[in-house]
Amino acid sequence: MRASHLFTKTQKQVPADETAKNAQLLIQAGFIHKEMAGVYAYLPLGLRVIERIKAIVREEMDAIGGQELIMTALQRKELWQTTDRWDDEKVDVWFKSQLKNGAEVGFGWSHEEQITSMMKNYIASYRDLPVYVYQFQTKLRNELRSKSGIMRGREFVMKDMYSYTTDEEKHQVFYDATIAAYMRVFQRVGLGDDTYVTVASGGPFTDKFSHEFQTLSEAGEDIIYLHKDKGIAINEEDLTDENLKRIGVEKVDLTKHKAAEVGNIFSFGGSKSEELGLFFTDENGQEKPVILGSYGIGITRLMGVIVEQFCDEKGIVWPESVAPMDVYLVRLSDEEKVVRAADELYERLTQENISVLYDDRDERAGKKFADADLIGLPHRIVVSNKTVSAGKHEYRHRTATAANQLSVEEIIKQLVEA
Amino acid sequence: MRASHLFTKTQKQVPADETAKNAQLLIQAGFIHKEMAGVYAYLPLGLRVIERIKAIVREEMDAIGGQELIMTALQRKELWQTTDRWDDEKVDVWFKSQLKNGAEVGFGWSHEEQITSMMKNYIASYRDLPVYVYQFQTKLRNELRSKSGIMRGREFVMKDMYSYTTDEEKHQVFYDATIAAYMRVFQRVGLGDDTYVTVASGGPFTDKFSHEFQTLSEAGEDIIYLHKDKGIAINEEDLTDENLKRIGVEKVDLTKHKAAEVGNIFSFGGSKSEELGLFFTDENGQEKPVILGSYGIGITRLMGVIVEQFCDEKGIVWPESVAPMDVYLVRLSDEEKVVRAADELYERLTQENISVLYDDRDERAGKKFADADLIGLPHRIVVSNKTVSAGKHEYRHRTATAANQLSVEEIIKQLVEA
Repeated sequence: MRASHLFTKTQKQVPADETAKNAQLLIQAGFIHKEMAGVYAYLPLGLRVIERIKAIVREEMDAIGGQELIMTALQRKELWQTTDRWDDEKVDVWFKSQLKNGAEVGFGWSHEEQITSMMKNYIASYRDLPVYVYQFQTKLRNELRSKSGIMRGREFVMKDMYSYTTDEEKHQVFYDATIAAYMRVFQRVGLGDDTYVTVASGGPFTDKFSHEFQTLSEAGEDIIYLHKDKGIAINEEDLTDENLKRIGVEKVDLTKHKAAEVGNIFSFGGSKSEELGLFFTDENGQEKPVILGSYGIGITRLMGVIVEQFCDEKGIVWPESVAPMDVYLVRLSDEEKVVRAADELYERLTQENISVLYDDRDERAGKKFADADLIGLPHRIVVSNKTVSAGKHEYRHRTATAANQLSVEEIIKQLVEA
Repeated sequence: MRASHLFTKTQKQVPADETAKNAQLLIQAGFIHKEMAGVYAYLPLGLRVIERIKAIVREEMDAIGGQELIMTALQRKELWQTTDRWDDEKVDVWFKSQLKNGAEVGFGWSHEEQITSMMKNYIASYRDLPVYVYQFQTKLRNELRSKSGIMRGREFVMKDMYSYTTDEEKHQVFYDATIAAYMRVFQRVGLGDDTYVTVASGGPFTDKFSHEFQTLSEAGEDIIYLHKDKGIAINEEDLTDENLKRIGVEKVDLTKHKAAEVGNIFSFGGSKSEELGLFFTDENGQEKPVILGSYGIGITRLMGVIVEQFCDEKGIVWPESVAPMDVYLVRLSDEEKVVRAADELYERLTQENISVLYDDRDERAGKKFADADLIGLPHRIVVSNKTVSAGKHEYRHRTATAANQLSVEEIIKQLVEA
């Protein structure tokens, strides 16, 4: 894409109404637009990052047997009354409205009830199980405060998955497979080394239990305690003597960290299915509630955490796997031979399936370099009078301090191997 | 995908609460789930159709210079008050709710105001123009009645595009390019021959004018009059003597048809930009309102119209371009040699990038054939004891009355060329 075509612009000033670094940088670099607190539009570069994250998550969910669908924002009151989660006293993040006939409707802050209820159409026998389904859904949550940029929104994208199995044993196998799939996701987006699974309330021997995936981050809203040698993490609220004993660690060996929750997974046992009437007939003709698991990754939050983790004083430093494009190509002159060389390189890279943001604008060199750093694509190439004369252009990785002079073939080789 | 893995099931009974054929068939075939009137979830097969339609629309919008982004459902009251479209007396499809601080918010039934207002961040000079942006957005509209299945929803997916240009002349060039792009979309999804552009209120010589794209359909809610020889269509409400004279046709030459509006495009001139404060400075330093155009295609409605147009008494008949998968592969026996032959064919087709719904279920032949017809994939292949012995399997196109006996290589050749 040519930068002259891209409608967004970078801005030098830090937005005055944003305290979160992720939102500051993403607004300055033209990835997002703030509509109101906690409500952001995703502009062309931002949408590309979202789609790349979704593609990684989709691959991993499909690999463990997930089937993608998409539920609705509009939710029936009666459904949520069934599980006693309609009342604002019970769930304090509802947005609600009315149909023309006066009937109340809610806007989906979660979809467990809706999907589980729908499954009554498709699950009747053990032969219909297991079922694993997921969606990328825009969730609407009426948060009291929303000051963490895209890490906690009133409107945000979540991947939520649900597992329906016949018994706890089969449930546990899928639950464990999901933990592994989630860790692959976090590894692939660059957060693997900083992300830990914490055992949250409950525990593996009760019917209902959950785990969280926490990424160490100063921008996080949670506190976790870490046993680095054993790779064990525990949430602050679970730091009881009983729990420490159960997992076999001493408090003195733990270190305290701020962390951001990037994923969470829940086991409901048969309780929610019983409430909603989702039963199946087993091999012996006996009716049983379906065992439910629920698994979430906040897609937009993940993007926010990635920005928080990978940035420097000059801007964002996207990991290759989720960068909106691969190369920022800076053209430093309007002279015909430079334009021709830069155009040719742009086309050549595009042919090689390397995506390029080609800065063909009529701007000062300093502005172009600053934008390249702020937007944070992994690779920067400079084509100038000097590089055209030398027959070698300037290549620099976003994280490198020095540039190399490389021929077109050397550039292609380097990028194809990257 | 193996049918044994797909969680949805077909149902023989027509849903009692649906009068629209599109919703009846899509529910029976397991493509959608009805949450409430006008609110449908898209199950794995349905989501695939949506994504294929979106991919076609995306290609055509990108080809005329569109940049994709995604705005938000949550909308600020003040913004819509600016253009006097907040009041329920003025716009009767709002869903509204409140933030925790009591501030009213709306849910996006349209996004013209929001995108145009945002553009104040990015458009200041003639050098920033033109800008063409589009999104695939879930629209929320509080419709009084909703009885046309997915052709008129309270929650539905729309592609909406907006053009920002310096003057009427440049606007007209893009407006005409969009008409051509829309016709390519309708052609590609199979509706080209039945879709007409109608001049709606206004006309090409006023500041504000619009066109509709109407597909002839018994399920449509509109009436159009058609001059078949000249390929001219006119909406019923525009059938005045003055308009007929203007476009040079006689009423006696027109035929009356039911039609479904599959797209619409509007020219706002500078009026909406003036209301919202979107101005630019031209070459002479003069401040002018940006010329706005707005262009919509209802993605889920389009899917509904396609189903209405392409079905028979046995089920849906998907056009190749939007079918959720290419081939319905029926295996008629559990005998080892049949299973092996069907598995091999399934893998071979997958390797050739032909997508297959492989009916490996333990079901009667009649049920499998009925499901193949109901789901409506373009190509059906049957592998049975008989076909394995003959070394040729049974191939039938969904629209054909007779089947052919073809070797694996002949099947591949036929499908790759399809």
